[in-house]
Amino acid sequence: MKKLKRSARLVEMTQFLLARPHQLIPLTTFAQRYGAAKSSISEDLAIIKEVFEDEGTGELQTLAGAAGGVKYIPKMGREQALHFIEQLCEKLAEPNRILPGGYLYMSDLLGLPGLMNEAGKLFATAFAGRDIDCVMTVETKGIPLAYATGAELNLPVVLVRRDHQVTEGSAVSINYVSGSHKSLHTMSLSRRALKEKSKVLIVDDFMKAGGTIQGMVDLLAEFNAVVAGVGVLVESGEVETEQRLLRDYVSLATLRAVDAKGKEISVEPGNYFSRK
Amino acid sequence: MKKLKRSARLVEMTQFLLARPHQLIPLTTFAQRYGAAKSSISEDLAIIKEVFEDEGTGELQTLAGAAGGVKYIPKMGREQALHFIEQLCEKLAEPNRILPGGYLYMSDLLGLPGLMNEAGKLFATAFAGRDIDCVMTVETKGIPLAYATGAELNLPVVLVRRDHQVTEGSAVSINYVSGSHKSLHTMSLSRRALKEKSKVLIVDDFMKAGGTIQGMVDLLAEFNAVVAGVGVLVESGEVETEQRLLRDYVSLATLRAVDAKGKEISVEPGNYFSRK
Repeated sequence: MKKLKRSARLVEMTQFLLARPHQLIPLTTFAQRYGAAKSSISEDLAIIKEVFEDEGTGELQTLAGAAGGVKYIPKMGREQALHFIEQLCEKLAEPNRILPGGYLYMSDLLGLPGLMNEAGKLFATAFAGRDIDCVMTVETKGIPLAYATGAELNLPVVLVRRDHQVTEGSAVSINYVSGSHKSLHTMSLSRRALKEKSKVLIVDDFMKAGGTIQGMVDLLAEFNAVVAGVGVLVESGEVETEQRLLRDYVSLATLRAVDAKGKEISVEPGNYFSRK
Repeated sequence: MKKLKRSARLVEMTQFLLARPHQLIPLTTFAQRYGAAKSSISEDLAIIKEVFEDEGTGELQTLAGAAGGVKYIPKMGREQALHFIEQLCEKLAEPNRILPGGYLYMSDLLGLPGLMNEAGKLFATAFAGRDIDCVMTVETKGIPLAYATGAELNLPVVLVRRDHQVTEGSAVSINYVSGSHKSLHTMSLSRRALKEKSKVLIVDDFMKAGGTIQGMVDLLAEFNAVVAGVGVLVESGEVETEQRLLRDYVSLATLRAVDAKGKEISVEPGNYFSRK
């Protein structure tokens, strides 16, 4: 790469770091890349670090020593997170979302890659300190959220299927009970999708009693894998606490009540802030 | 926002632009944000533009006049694209991917958010000049690719379901014939997911004869919507040209042959470059 001036180098380093979250980049990589002294690179990184931290874009962790380098940890600052969650609640409360049976139409919001990426950044913030090997979700609507989270944490995504697919090879299937309706369902995971003893972050778009997520937890046990965390975009607050199968999770919004007759939806922020 | 020095401003502007692809940002936005003169902002943008274009990160389009501003168009340079596609082909050709029936296990690759985002950037490069309202895919495996493409093009994603779901509201369902197996399937799209006359980019992970994609095309007709383009990660080259239902598409890789006995997979670059 050609030798760059500091101004150009700052632009290049910024985009290089943003494209590589949670990856340790040795200072020598930058020094060689730009034909610059390590001391200059350190000064550049100090400038980038200050902007990222002031802006709430994330942290720049510097590790000293021979194995040292710099790592970009995407994080959403408290103020931005609050703003995002308030906006999300407002959108979820739009009365035209009510469907027959009191269900909520959310596909338009789940269809916005930018919104999903922001939500993924929130989960990446909440789980940044945990030791995680991969992100897991069950098809279909939680998939964009799982990928957004995986991208920010630099982790692969493992996809649980509702049916056993020929393109997944041999698979482990389990039955699980949907907690609110008490109906029986099947989910299935390819044998080669998950290594034994993996530490898994479970992500989904919606949680009522938590039966589907409990199903994923049970499936993990079949792989001798463990839950490293659970994140849901929206939780239903209509479930009694003692009915909830799962207690340890992060939610961004809580659906308090859906009044189909009065056309009113009541949505509050989830437990994201109260857990901190 | 506090007044920044040029060095810090360059870092901030770079991350601001990267987070907002295909969005017109007036120079006054930057001028106000940083308390800087428009002439300084223009100089900053010239530096960023040069780095982005040298690096193959994308283009920075400047529009002059009262409604003017700057727009970041993510694009992958030819050299990087070639490198990406070669690596993809190599990974697809790993012999342990062969499943009973000559199917290919691809879920590990489809589970890498970074790889999906790169592929999405390639589609965003190929379709950057087209007039598109949204990206469409059918569940399940094409979803991450569709979101990656949507994120780079700043477009929403519309998700076609295999079954009609209660959370989708009223929906339009069609039957379609899978071209290679001649079996009949159903797909369904929520009425409110797609506006009439939308121009739609169809994205999927795999195409054999093209029956599934033709199904999406037929579904679009039900919404008076039109196809603005078709992108597939892998196409099967085992289909005779006259058997292929679709002729106008962009593919990143072509699966030439799967020899289950000899444990050999032959993969070549798709038509991405030959179409340019």
